Amino acid sequence: MPAPLLILLILSGLLLLALLIRRTYGRARLYRTIFGTDTPAGKAFDVALLIAIVVSVLAVVIETDPVLRVNWDGPFNVLEWGFTLVFTLEYMLRLLCVGSPQRYARSFFGVVDLLSIVPSFLGLLVGGSHVFLVVRMLRVMRVFRVLKLGEYLQESNLLRDAIVAGRRKITVFLLAMITLVTVIGSLMYVIEGPERGFRSIPVGIYWAIVTITTVGYGDVTPETTLGRFMASVVMLLGYSIIAVPTGIISSEIGQASARQREEAGKAEVVCRACLRVGHDRDARHCKFCGAGL
Amino acid sequence: MPAPLLILLILSGLLLLALLIRRTYGRARLYRTIFGTDTPAGKAFDVALLIAIVVSVLAVVIETDPVLRVNWDGPFNVLEWGFTLVFTLEYMLRLLCVGSPQRYARSFFGVVDLLSIVPSFLGLLVGGSHVFLVVRMLRVMRVFRVLKLGEYLQESNLLRDAIVAGRRKITVFLLAMITLVTVIGSLMYVIEGPERGFRSIPVGIYWAIVTITTVGYGDVTPETTLGRFMASVVMLLGYSIIAVPTGIISSEIGQASARQREEAGKAEVVCRACLRVGHDRDARHCKFCGAGL
Amino acid sequence: MPAPLLILLILSGLLLLALLIRRTYGRARLYRTIFGTDTPAGKAFDVALLIAIVVSVLAVVIETDPVLRVNWDGPFNVLEWGFTLVFTLEYMLRLLCVGSPQRYARSFFGVVDLLSIVPSFLGLLVGGSHVFLVVRMLRVMRVFRVLKLGEYLQESNLLRDAIVAGRRKITVFLLAMITLVTVIGSLMYVIEGPERGFRSIPVGIYWAIVTITTVGYGDVTPETTLGRFMASVVMLLGYSIIAVPTGIISSEIGQASARQREEAGKAEVVCRACLRVGHDRDARHCKFCGAGL
Amino acid sequence: MPAPLLILLILSGLLLLALLIRRTYGRARLYRTIFGTDTPAGKAFDVALLIAIVVSVLAVVIETDPVLRVNWDGPFNVLEWGFTLVFTLEYMLRLLCVGSPQRYARSFFGVVDLLSIVPSFLGLLVGGSHVFLVVRMLRVMRVFRVLKLGEYLQESNLLRDAIVAGRRKITVFLLAMITLVTVIGSLMYVIEGPERGFRSIPVGIYWAIVTITTVGYGDVTPETTLGRFMASVVMLLGYSIIAVPTGIISSEIGQASARQREEAGKAEVVCRACLRVGHDRDARHCKFCGAGL
Repeated sequence: MPAPLLILLILSGLLLLALLIRRTYGRARLYRTIFGTDTPAGKAFDVALLIAIVVSVLAVVIETDPVLRVNWDGPFNVLEWGFTLVFTLEYMLRLLCVGSPQRYARSFFGVVDLLSIVPSFLGLLVGGSHVFLVVRMLRVMRVFRVLKLGEYLQESNLLRDAIVAGRRKITVFLLAMITLVTVIGSLMYVIEGPERGFRSIPVGIYWAIVTITTVGYGDVTPETTLGRFMASVVMLLGYSIIAVPTGIISSEIGQASARQREEAGKAEVVCRACLRVGHDRDARHCKFCGAGL
Repeated sequence: MPAPLLILLILSGLLLLALLIRRTYGRARLYRTIFGTDTPAGKAFDVALLIAIVVSVLAVVIETDPVLRVNWDGPFNVLEWGFTLVFTLEYMLRLLCVGSPQRYARSFFGVVDLLSIVPSFLGLLVGGSHVFLVVRMLRVMRVFRVLKLGEYLQESNLLRDAIVAGRRKITVFLLAMITLVTVIGSLMYVIEGPERGFRSIPVGIYWAIVTITTVGYGDVTPETTLGRFMASVVMLLGYSIIAVPTGIISSEIGQASARQREEAGKAEVVCRACLRVGHDRDARHCKFCGAGL
Repeated sequence: MPAPLLILLILSGLLLLALLIRRTYGRARLYRTIFGTDTPAGKAFDVALLIAIVVSVLAVVIETDPVLRVNWDGPFNVLEWGFTLVFTLEYMLRLLCVGSPQRYARSFFGVVDLLSIVPSFLGLLVGGSHVFLVVRMLRVMRVFRVLKLGEYLQESNLLRDAIVAGRRKITVFLLAMITLVTVIGSLMYVIEGPERGFRSIPVGIYWAIVTITTVGYGDVTPETTLGRFMASVVMLLGYSIIAVPTGIISSEIGQASARQREEAGKAEVVCRACLRVGHDRDARHCKFCGAGL
Repeated sequence: MPAPLLILLILSGLLLLALLIRRTYGRARLYRTIFGTDTPAGKAFDVALLIAIVVSVLAVVIETDPVLRVNWDGPFNVLEWGFTLVFTLEYMLRLLCVGSPQRYARSFFGVVDLLSIVPSFLGLLVGGSHVFLVVRMLRVMRVFRVLKLGEYLQESNLLRDAIVAGRRKITVFLLAMITLVTVIGSLMYVIEGPERGFRSIPVGIYWAIVTITTVGYGDVTPETTLGRFMASVVMLLGYSIIAVPTGIISSEIGQASARQREEAGKAEVVCRACLRVGHDRDARHCKFCGAGL
């Protein structure tokens, strides 16, 4: 049977199944289970999804390992196809139960969901490829759905808020860094020269980034005394400016935390006698006038 | 004499000695000395224990060094057995003087105490092994008992509180990191390929972790121009997100310190009417009973 | 035609063009477009300049790459000369429309602007050289002009203020670091010796800086047991003192942010009597004239 | 002339010179010039000393460089002896003008001052040695005297205070780190084994420190899949706990800064009408009651 026909058959079968599930289970209930996290079924769905993602990512990983592939190629091929069918069914169910299928399909997670199933079908049509592997690995980004789970929602929001609030400072900082490493990289290209590994200015810039971020692979290193002196200056510089993004984010996280706590505390107690606020949570009397709260 | 019999003999002898010590010294006093840190005997016991741990760990370390083992094998074998006997006696004493031996035996330190003596006896039965070495090295974790010493208690608590308070943010952050390195690692596997050291996706992920944490061994490095460009982006990314855990912990340590100081400061004002403490510095009336301060 | 004459001809032509543009466009309007960022024309000019800088830097970079140079030498030579002419014209326009040409020519950006055009002309006279390449790369520093763009101005100022406010603490810290790495580097030179890569004290100091900043190339590493022990101590030390600049900058960024927010918040309340601002939020009377707010 | 006699002659000559200087210049004035920094002569002395230290350290550094030594051995030998005589004279003057010579001789800087002159004389007696080189390099620590210069005094104190205030937390942290790397190093020794570079447990611990501090030389690296997995966990761990010392020091620097500013601000303005405080520096009227300040 030719591949396109096979794919059509599979997709039609899954679509029928999805429609059947929607009828049996009810659209609203399906929506709460798949997208919500506040019902037991919704939580169970999220946990099952998490396990499915992790296992399917492991399957892709093992496929690329020359040693493991020899023994596990058969079972993991089956597993891979099983997960592709499950994720395809899930994608159809999401489309069928959501209010605006178009908006979901265009959303970040809608695209990630689609990208995690398409490569397997494409592989049937045009043959497997390394590029498909990476696209399939994008599945792992679905893990972020789990962060919507109630327990971690507040923490996720706080970190996101801190990064969003600091994004302009980070942009300015990165722009300054890129300018700096360009100048340093060009300088080292002239000092050390092509015969000592600094083959071109891009290699010099690569070295400058490796050094200033304190990664320090050691695949390109200065060998002349002047080069090592320059490198020392760059390292001490990097050591000092590593502090800048940390300072930015620290300050933003501190402020975001303070805002959160303030809002939590602001279910605020007002003294009915003197109308002043700022009382502790365990206070029974106004600390300014002594009237009962 | 067969090994099992020998072990039985040794253990019986030590148990008799332990029972003798408990009778002579008194159970309550023994407990205060072994578990407490507020008596001179208790402090002396902790210091002696600390020295014994360090020396016995050194003995294990030397045993694995091919050069040192030649000359020091004899004396350190004796030393090792001496410490095993001392620790066995100590473990028995702890079991004999504690209120609930079962709870102690199942506690974290109870298990560590047991694991630091069992391997030596097992070695007699089934022959020495590398695995036993590591289990014996777990002895070093007993050092944490010392942190209970009064001087460092407050600092230990503060650090523990800060880490506990930030554990959810750290979890969210690590989850995001793992997802990120998986995607980056797969991408680099495709860009650089097996012939340049990126043998499989796990190696790519290993490279991504080595790079994003700024460790940078240099055992796997990109060689193509595209790969080096990608690596530069990953490094600048890592440089920026290294700030996130620092920001989290800095913020938590700051808050934990502020709480400690606040509590220290609040304890000062006592209400003369209800004798309760915990008033703000600007309070004029007791927040519990309303009497003037 | 000899090179000096050619250069003279080019420069005269450009000067005429610049004078023509100033007459047509008007000096004040030219100034607002070139130096300002608040008119549509000014923004367009800045964006065009940004693109020109990036492309011309790329041209220099490609020129140093042995592979790319073969195919792209011709077009990029043309591109390079095109940008040199554009930047020369721009430099003349800046000189012609600014209030004090002398002060501009001596300012930081005036020098950078000049340095980004001189090497190409010098290259015509005395032949190309590696050193000219780096000077031409200084063009990239013109990118910092973009930071004046309204959106990033506040963030740039905040970061600059934080770094300026912490510069003395950073100086003291760097001085202490340099002293420390000198002592450590000398010590390692004696411990490891020339036969294990530590050829001289400067190499030892280079190693100490590579290690204490956690760069860790691995081109010079300790091999003796004592050397590795020393290195471990240095690393733990470096791990602890990496915190110091971070702490300094974090603290300064936090304070600079607080000042900015405070000023933003203070501007709100205006005294109806003297119309001055800058009152605290809890103020009931104007702090300047005493009238009720 | 035998060496001991020569040394005796030199020292006697210098002592005579020092006594002459004390008589001519006056003891109190000598003390203010040598130890103080608030007179012009004192500042000039400190700057001259700083230059002498830097040059003499450079002389030692050059002496160890095989290339530079060939050409510069003669002049730097002379220079070295010149500085030794100058520093010997300075040491004598310090002893002669200080109140309690004994206390100075036993102080940290007293010992450093002595150690920077003794090796040269010892070298005459017993022949030069590598160890003497390092002791002579200790001269560089005299640079810290410069930090007493008024401009940097406040910053030095702030950093010192922050580190002193955080020393217990850092101790607890380092103790926990050492325990952790011991366990991790032993584990890696068993996983990777001597045939892959992990020759003994100390090497494993060395690797764990290199990894967890993110130095990452790459001289010892895991090669097995399990070892690389373990290493990844260690790196992510290290990435998280790098935050702890930073958090400690950030928090302490923030507090120390706040204390300094508070003290500076506490030249506090009190309203004579309502006796309340908390006024801005530019306030002319009480913000609570409106009375003039």
